[in-house]
Amino acid sequence: MTRDDLYQLILSRQSYLCVGLDIDPQKIPPCLWEHSDDPLWEFNRRIIDATRPYCVAYKPNLAFYEALGLEGWKLLEKTIRYIGEEHFIIADAKRGDIGNTSRLYAQAFFETLPCDAVTVAPYMGADSVAPFLGFPGKWAVLLALTSNPGSRDFQFETLEESGAPLYQRVLGAARTWGGPDELMFVVGATHPEQFRKVREIVPEYFLLVPGVGAQGGDVQAISENAWNAQCGLLVNASRSILYAGNGADFDRAAAAEAKALQGEMAAIIARRSVV
Amino acid sequence: MTRDDLYQLILSRQSYLCVGLDIDPQKIPPCLWEHSDDPLWEFNRRIIDATRPYCVAYKPNLAFYEALGLEGWKLLEKTIRYIGEEHFIIADAKRGDIGNTSRLYAQAFFETLPCDAVTVAPYMGADSVAPFLGFPGKWAVLLALTSNPGSRDFQFETLEESGAPLYQRVLGAARTWGGPDELMFVVGATHPEQFRKVREIVPEYFLLVPGVGAQGGDVQAISENAWNAQCGLLVNASRSILYAGNGADFDRAAAAEAKALQGEMAAIIARRSVV
Repeated sequence: MTRDDLYQLILSRQSYLCVGLDIDPQKIPPCLWEHSDDPLWEFNRRIIDATRPYCVAYKPNLAFYEALGLEGWKLLEKTIRYIGEEHFIIADAKRGDIGNTSRLYAQAFFETLPCDAVTVAPYMGADSVAPFLGFPGKWAVLLALTSNPGSRDFQFETLEESGAPLYQRVLGAARTWGGPDELMFVVGATHPEQFRKVREIVPEYFLLVPGVGAQGGDVQAISENAWNAQCGLLVNASRSILYAGNGADFDRAAAAEAKALQGEMAAIIARRSVV
Repeated sequence: MTRDDLYQLILSRQSYLCVGLDIDPQKIPPCLWEHSDDPLWEFNRRIIDATRPYCVAYKPNLAFYEALGLEGWKLLEKTIRYIGEEHFIIADAKRGDIGNTSRLYAQAFFETLPCDAVTVAPYMGADSVAPFLGFPGKWAVLLALTSNPGSRDFQFETLEESGAPLYQRVLGAARTWGGPDELMFVVGATHPEQFRKVREIVPEYFLLVPGVGAQGGDVQAISENAWNAQCGLLVNASRSILYAGNGADFDRAAAAEAKALQGEMAAIIARRSVV
């Protein structure tokens, strides 16, 4: 999916919501274990069906599937193929390795699986990220500033040369590696005060913003500070949508939660009058 | 496998060689594709049988398996189970995510699969690494200084507070997160001049050293600078062993290459008189 396609999708669906598909066997409704032949697949399928109208992207987090072994890998493939082409699919894998190895990860997510994007860790530098770039309509989503408490351990270290924190150096370096049609950045919702600085460095790039919902981030504050000419935001919520309900109607509860976020986003889109 | 077990293995096998199982369908001997029902599995099985006596560890690189999709995941499981308990098994996965997600990766590699260790990326900080610690006999192997050209992009950035490079800050912070019985560090063979500094910061930890062979690192120089009281080194070679030969006797060529490295290591062990 190209940047223009994504932007058109945002306008037509009046949403820049990404739903994180973090499936957890211990959290899905107990009734699924009692009544379904394949409870994990039924959970994903019903969550997708319920939230489709309200989101533009899905983000399966690979860890949740890998923890299930071979069955998890099958579930991931089935889930990604079920999502189809009307949503942007981000493999949240946080990969990154030496060049010849990153090339294989790119192949795994862009060719073996039909994902649109994969999240990538920056620590190993340019040659670990470059192999994810240059696939038309495919994206590397580079970790810049993450939403977790540990983001404070290294990402905010001030560098001697620039006097700025490491995460800003990552943004600045990475924009020389890839353009805004092939590269996005992860910037956590839990650092709303950083978004203006981020936009100074990468004004035209899409940002994938995790940390809304269970982690406490706020759609309004993010959008206020990080909006760009083509929206430029994908705001992710996972647990708050997936586990909104715990009964037989869990999908309705998820839909309601997704719809509420979509409504908030539609109002922001209207105010920003990007139509 | 505990640190003592690993050290005893090194002494008894007179080797601290780790063989990287980076299986590449385009590089395995053509004859396998002609004569074998399952060429990738036959390749791994014969490489393992040929190199067992000369190494103490195997390191399957997950990217190579993920690129093959479901079949790759099956091959990985089969390969890991075939290696067995007489070798230390490192899942080279370079994982790392927010706490609840890293916990699942730890489960994937330490419980779903019987690996001894998994490589972990440091960028997301303490809570992304902690879930890999505290499993008795299991290890997190944290990227500190990698062997690739991109290691120069961020890992050598000088920090304002300490006046030292980022990778040293990673070492210093991480040693407060986990002890030398649960945590190792990746330090690339392509930076031999850095090993003495590394040993000042983490004298008692094991180091996993990639970059020997195809990437040009040198066993002698590494061992000279990074040896500790319990050897403290696992030196990895992948391509130079796996693809030493390209004919029907590829396993013999691999064995010869592994044996040569083991011989070099035995001589170093003798000189260091750790017996």
